Amino acid sequence: MIDAKKAAALLRAMDRVLLVTHVRPDGDTIGSAAALCLGLRAMGKEAYLLVNPEITETYRPYAAPCWAPEGYEPDAVISVDVAVAELLPENALAYRDSIALAIDHHPSHGFFAEETCLDAQAAACGEIVYEILTELTEITPAIALPLYVAIATDCGCFVYSNTSAKTHRIAARLMETGIDVSEVNRQLFRTKSKVRLRMEARMVAEMELFDHDRVVIMKIPQALCREMQATQTDIEELSALAPQVEGVDCGITLRELPSGKVKISVRSGPRVNASEVCRRLGGGGHQAAAGATAEGSLDEVKQAVLHAVETVVSQ
Amino acid sequence: MIDAKKAAALLRAMDRVLLVTHVRPDGDTIGSAAALCLGLRAMGKEAYLLVNPEITETYRPYAAPCWAPEGYEPDAVISVDVAVAELLPENALAYRDSIALAIDHHPSHGFFAEETCLDAQAAACGEIVYEILTELTEITPAIALPLYVAIATDCGCFVYSNTSAKTHRIAARLMETGIDVSEVNRQLFRTKSKVRLRMEARMVAEMELFDHDRVVIMKIPQALCREMQATQTDIEELSALAPQVEGVDCGITLRELPSGKVKISVRSGPRVNASEVCRRLGGGGHQAAAGATAEGSLDEVKQAVLHAVETVVSQ
Repeated sequence: MIDAKKAAALLRAMDRVLLVTHVRPDGDTIGSAAALCLGLRAMGKEAYLLVNPEITETYRPYAAPCWAPEGYEPDAVISVDVAVAELLPENALAYRDSIALAIDHHPSHGFFAEETCLDAQAAACGEIVYEILTELTEITPAIALPLYVAIATDCGCFVYSNTSAKTHRIAARLMETGIDVSEVNRQLFRTKSKVRLRMEARMVAEMELFDHDRVVIMKIPQALCREMQATQTDIEELSALAPQVEGVDCGITLRELPSGKVKISVRSGPRVNASEVCRRLGGGGHQAAAGATAEGSLDEVKQAVLHAVETVVSQ
Repeated sequence: MIDAKKAAALLRAMDRVLLVTHVRPDGDTIGSAAALCLGLRAMGKEAYLLVNPEITETYRPYAAPCWAPEGYEPDAVISVDVAVAELLPENALAYRDSIALAIDHHPSHGFFAEETCLDAQAAACGEIVYEILTELTEITPAIALPLYVAIATDCGCFVYSNTSAKTHRIAARLMETGIDVSEVNRQLFRTKSKVRLRMEARMVAEMELFDHDRVVIMKIPQALCREMQATQTDIEELSALAPQVEGVDCGITLRELPSGKVKISVRSGPRVNASEVCRRLGGGGHQAAAGATAEGSLDEVKQAVLHAVETVVSQ
């Protein structure tokens, strides 16, 4: 494992660099990779991002100036924010065994690269990339903006418990380059589509509370999605709503899939092991956030989930 | 107008201080006043907060250790985050003409005190109080926590456009005192009461869009508050919902007060000067966030606000 200074030294010696990001790319993997790419270019190097086929409209503007041309043959491949090699997109699998440097902040990092620059305390991979880049080049506004996106998205705009004094300090330095983050913040953290707001409103109006109001169940029937003409973007992360209910320590979201199956999301506090609940329903995940997919009607699945929660809690 | 250094000098010469906050107290007025009170006490002075009868459960814990005993007779009165004398609570009106120092960050400040320490660039009054306190005493964790609350609440946890590099830098320094802000962040920014969620759901279901969907009006009738048995805490900051609607750059919230008057909140992007809109309705505030209170029914006030927006935009 190497620190930011040594990672910078490695990068200084590289040229013709290809940066790879993870599947279902988020703001941190895209923002960090784009910032690093622009920094390397500012040093006079050739650098590109491997096209990530799952890029969403939200993050495309940051990646677009960096996409590698077809057939680009790099001398060095670097992974950014990739915890394990299994999270590489399919078009990156060819490089799986020849990644020269992995830059990451996941405690579950799989050490698949020749060298690894890992800081599991960092709120975002963007914090590490910031440290590396300050060793190498001036942080211009063009570099600062994707770095800000990387950091802000991974800490929920400085609200999640991973936010540290260092996170704020780096945000301050990035803003001091002169970038205007207010529009980025508004788009990423303060905007909801009308459809999404109306779906949330319906989910709240029809939420059901159980177990002395400690367990809430919110439902997303297919009929609601059709009625609202909801897109995938309108629906994503709707499971973040249930755990926001005050007094609740087990927020369950049941979404009817087009196939007729039901997707179960469980977010929980220490009393309820979400992973254990979902394991009993054929799924899995973490102690505080887990999921499963089940057969049956919304009502049948609701009963099954409540039963699983009861069993796990009483164990 | 005096700067933080001069305000600190004034405070150094004071004793038996009474701090006054504004009506419908928010995190900034309470957090800033509580931090200043604790700082003055750490300097060996007597200092109290005038009881604010409208304090909500959310901010009571920060104010409670500081409430002045009945009959407390101060030598010096200081207002914190109070834009104009009209925003003093009724029990502070006796001091209206004898306020020695006003510490504030509202551009619409009314200069009602003998001395005024105003920084209209500050995201929160808490930023100014931080600067003053660093001149006077060590920022202990006990002082840092209410200051963090003051700053974080006024910038929506670093998401609003008033957030500056300085805001982040102060947050970093406060966190470096060792305070744990993750529970504060969860409570203040990631939890909503069931009543509040249900009120938001109703406001969304009944929202009205104008001017090519760029202006949204959400309403909080007294009937809704009664039906939901909403407390003051359930209602506070409900005006943050309207500006979240995608595509909207002017989010207006109209709340019917128990008196029958209507409280107007305007949150806007650069196209609409919220301060100017509210000035025309007898209120004031900032370019991006302002308020006013008007006579009339919700529908009459709605027409008046829409007219004011139209006038301001076409100027």
